[in-house]
Formats: sequence, structure tokens, C-alpha cells
Amino acid sequence: MTTKVNIRDVAKAAGVSVTTVSHALSETHQARVNALTVAHVKAIADDLGYAPNRLASGLRNQRSQILGLVSDEITTTPFAGAMLQGAQDAASERGHLLMVVNSGLDNELERQEIRALQQHQVDGIIYARMYHHMVSVPEELRGVPTVLLDAISEDPKLSSVVPDEFGAGESAVEVLIAAGHRRIGMINNEDDIPAAHGRLRGFREALARHGLPFQPDHYLTAHPNTAGGRETALKLLSLPDRPTALFCFSDQMAMGAYQAANHLGLKVPDDISIVGVDNLELIAGALWPGLSTMALPHYEMGRWAVLKLLEEIENPDEPRVHEEIACPLVERDSVAPPPASQPQS
Amino acid sequence: MTTKVNIRDVAKAAGVSVTTVSHALSETHQARVNALTVAHVKAIADDLGYAPNRLASGLRNQRSQILGLVSDEITTTPFAGAMLQGAQDAASERGHLLMVVNSGLDNELERQEIRALQQHQVDGIIYARMYHHMVSVPEELRGVPTVLLDAISEDPKLSSVVPDEFGAGESAVEVLIAAGHRRIGMINNEDDIPAAHGRLRGFREALARHGLPFQPDHYLTAHPNTAGGRETALKLLSLPDRPTALFCFSDQMAMGAYQAANHLGLKVPDDISIVGVDNLELIAGALWPGLSTMALPHYEMGRWAVLKLLEEIENPDEPRVHEEIACPLVERDSVAPPPASQPQS
Repeated sequence: MTTKVNIRDVAKAAGVSVTTVSHALSETHQARVNALTVAHVKAIADDLGYAPNRLASGLRNQRSQILGLVSDEITTTPFAGAMLQGAQDAASERGHLLMVVNSGLDNELERQEIRALQQHQVDGIIYARMYHHMVSVPEELRGVPTVLLDAISEDPKLSSVVPDEFGAGESAVEVLIAAGHRRIGMINNEDDIPAAHGRLRGFREALARHGLPFQPDHYLTAHPNTAGGRETALKLLSLPDRPTALFCFSDQMAMGAYQAANHLGLKVPDDISIVGVDNLELIAGALWPGLSTMALPHYEMGRWAVLKLLEEIENPDEPRVHEEIACPLVERDSVAPPPASQPQS
Repeated sequence: MTTKVNIRDVAKAAGVSVTTVSHALSETHQARVNALTVAHVKAIADDLGYAPNRLASGLRNQRSQILGLVSDEITTTPFAGAMLQGAQDAASERGHLLMVVNSGLDNELERQEIRALQQHQVDGIIYARMYHHMVSVPEELRGVPTVLLDAISEDPKLSSVVPDEFGAGESAVEVLIAAGHRRIGMINNEDDIPAAHGRLRGFREALARHGLPFQPDHYLTAHPNTAGGRETALKLLSLPDRPTALFCFSDQMAMGAYQAANHLGLKVPDDISIVGVDNLELIAGALWPGLSTMALPHYEMGRWAVLKLLEEIENPDEPRVHEEIACPLVERDSVAPPPASQPQS
């Protein structure tokens, strides 16, 4: 193995004892050594590339300064990056490192990984899902400070953070109504998940507030990908009283709605306005014209989870909280007034 | 702080000494305790959810069983997931955890993070870039076993793994030539990076091998996003002798080429065949028709880097290697024979 510089090398090069080096490089014990010696030892340690052993100090203060993040399917989702980045940024600001493990959908592997994190004495764990889930928290997390990220559980002892799904649906409809639309369709995810239910409730609530009926034939669900969005949009946009605007469950489904509109010779936004959810730059920013969409707050949720976890590690009596973070509108070019030629109902 | 079960709790519950628990749960010392006691202690430890303290054993054997992965811009790239997953899978197969840190593009933060990883006594570090880069390896990595992931450096002492960019360009052109195309354009990334140079060399080599000229007016470069692909494709597809096929630097640029073709009333693949690079499911699988593309081997590169790093940690005399991993064709529906009405040059 490549030789690592150790404390004895620093002591030898600095001409002082190992204890002096240890004190000089310790924030808590530095006062025991005179300031010139501290500066000298630090300079030598820097020259040699020596880093004090946090493993040992972790043992002493019973804190490893490591947080674990357990997630399900990093690979297959485009969101992982922003959640990890938010968690990572908050952890480094607070002097902690984030150790990420990833179980796919294998429950047994996940349990092994959680045990391994505990063997490495993580101070606490972020239990993350890559989209808003109801989860059963694994028993292995008993006794470890834990915060749920983009997940909820029935266990009220755990804090959790998710997007404000209801608000996303509500705001999307408000935007379309403000542009003059009164026949607004929705393409939803067919899966039985909180995001689908919450966004639909927000959609209906906003319609009702403006005295607009919920028209069941303007509401379809499908597999939540581009093909699902395309197939349902082809149906909705072929109706004689087709909607003049569509609220889509995701940017991916909205991309399918663009393809359907194009196939039917309809222009976005002149003939059909479209709003998505996610704000995936790779899609929302790439579609032509750009897609106006409700941004999922992945970065903010990652930050929130780490900061809350650190609070609960510091003070176990902190109240547990369920947080919903707003999904702001990112305006691009997919919303316009409804076509004049189509009389509004 | 929530109470963690410790070794004394296990000893008490099992009715044995702390030393007996320690031996019973240690692979190397298990033989000192009789087998029935081992089974008894293990059952009690399982019941209580006790995990032995790897921090302490890491100190004893000078291995933490943790690998660090330092990356640049996880957030803004869709590739991070697959590279992390490959690295993660290989690490867990070998009983190691992967600690991921992420510096954005901030060199000073990156140095701090590398020092922090060393303080946590990582056994080695994967230094990763989110696309194939030439890098200057930070001095902080001196003395730490290090493998470069999707990056190369002039330092021959470090192993590295990147995609076979040349092969990607070559194979894409071979696919188009096999379909009957002879006027093949290329839309490249305008940045001075190995991927752009390698793919262009492969493109030219394959043309030359088949006696086809490199036509400078069928080769354009742009900013590597969808808008860049769209603008250059609009130019290439408006030429009187327009190419019948396009090789695009990335799936994102290929998505722009689809938009350009559609805008000009050309159908993919009947009027224009398109091949991309990346195999981003979110784009290649979502375009209509699906995009045939050269898959970047992000998962495989992540695995390779971890396995090589572990070899070098075990045996510092392992030869350092520069590995190029092939980019296989993923066939979808964007390649067809050239239109019959257009006489081939």
C-alpha cells in the first residue's frame, strides 16, 4: 500500500514529540502548546500532506462526523443528482461528510448496507427515495437518528420532507386559468402514489375555486413516461371539445404531449398550452418551445433533510416535523392564451 | 442522542463478558470461543440490533473499508447516477462502502474535501469527472491510492478509465454505411475535449476506410445541448446536397436534430437517419421514433475504477493501466436506408 504520512513523521520532521503534534493540530488542545510551535507544526504537517486521524477522534467523542444516505434507485432516475447535491452541500457546510449507499430495490441488500453504515458509526441516516413514497422504515434504523427524504412513513417519530404536490397541481392550473384557459385537461401518473393523488387534488381544487367543472373525459392516466404522455395526449387532443391546455404529471409526460400535438398538426403554445412538473433541464429546457413547469425542490429537500438530521443528532428532543416544500413555477414558452378561433365553454 | 446498543448491552443480555462478545463477533478471533457461545452471542446481537464498531477495527488493521469518490458536478449531469451505481455495486460486492463527495467546480472546496476524506482514513480515492476530461490531479492526492474515472491525466502513476471515444465514432458511421448511406454529416461538440476529438477521428477513419470523402461542409460544431444540435441541423439539412444521415455528438444534440428535421418537414428515419451518443433513456428512449445511439459505459467505468483501486490498495505493485471501455450500439428506430428519391453521390 502507498505509505501514508503519519503523526510520527510529522513529529520527527518538526523536531517535537508526538504529543506536541497531536495537541498542536487539535482544536480543543491547541492552547496547551505555544503559538509558535503550533504554527511550526502546522506548516510541517501541510508540507508533508499529513491529515490527523479523525477515526481516532471519532472514537473519543463518539461522533464520526459522517452521515449516511440510503437511497433506492440512483441509477434510473435523473433526480438523484440534485437531492445528493443538496444533502452534500448542507453536510459539508456543517463539517460532515455524506456516505451514500444505494440498494436498488433489494430490501436485503438495503438492510446489509444500513448495518454497514452503523458499523462505520455514522451519526445519523437520511433514508431517501427517488420519488415521493410511502415507506416502511427498515427495523435496522431503530435507534439511529433518521430523517426521511422524499418519503413519508406512518411512523410519527421520524421527520420527513416531501414536495408540496397539492400546491404544484394548484399553481399549474392557476397559471393556465390566468392565461385565459377554461378547458384544461390533466394527464396523470396511473400509479397509486402520493404525487399522483396530491397533484390531482390541487388540480381539482383550483378548477373549483374558479367555478370550472372537473370534466372526467379531460382527465386520463398512463404509465409515467414519454410514451404514456404521448398516447393519452393523442386521445385528449383528438376530442371534438379538446382541452386548450394540458397539465401533465411530469416533464417526461409533457414531452409526449408535445409529440402528440406535433403529430396532430397543433402548435405549442398557439394551439395548446402545456405545463409539466419536475423542471428537468434535459427535457423542459430542451423542448422547442421550452416547457413551463413546476420545479420539484430536490436540492432544497436534500438540504432540509441533512440540516434537520443534524439538529436531531445535537438535540434528541427536537420536535419531529413533516415538511412540504413548495414547487415554484419555472416559466418558459409553453403557455399562451387559448386559440381565438375556439370558443370557450 | 438516541441510544445506540453497545457491546456491554450485548454482553449483559448474553450473560458473557465483553471480551467474549468481541471475540464471538470477530472473524479473526472467533476460534477462541466455543461454537455454541458464538451462535448464542450472534443471536443476542441480532435481536438487539448491535453492529460491531468498525471504526475501532479500522484502527487496528489500518483499513477503514471506505473508499472515497470525489466528483465535480453531480447535479448538472444526468450521468452521475450510473457511474455512482457502478462504483457503489463494485464496492459493496467487495465489502467496502463508498463515500461520495462533490465539489462543484470549486478547487478549494475540492481540496478541503479530499483532506476530509483522508481524515476519515479512506483506503483510496476515485477521482471522477462527469465527462471525459484531461485533469490536473490535486496535490492532496499524493500518497493516497487513486484511480481516475472518466478522466485522464499526464501523470502515468495513476490508473484511469474512459470511454472508447474513437470506437464510438467509428461504429456509428459503420452502422450508417451498412444501412446504405454515403452522405453522412456530423454535428460535434465545439469544446476542446477528448470526446469531441476522439469521436471525430473515429468518424473520419470509418469514412476513409470505405472510400468516402470527409466533406467539410457536412461537419459543424456547436454548444453541446439540444439548441446547439437544432441550429446546426437546421443548417445541414437545408443544404442542397444535404446529408442523408447525421452522427451527433450526444443524445441531446440528436434531440435538436429531430426538432430541426421536423421543422423542415423531414421524417426520421425515412428522410434522415440519426445516431447519437450516450443512451440517456430519458432522451434516446423518449424521442419518437426512438434514437439509435452509442451507449456510454458509465456503469462499467464506475465498476472498473473501484475494482482497479482495490487491486492497487491490496498490492501497490500492480501495474498502472489506462483503460478504454467500448461504447456499444443500442438500436432503436432512427436508422433506415437513405431516401430512394435522392440519388447518392
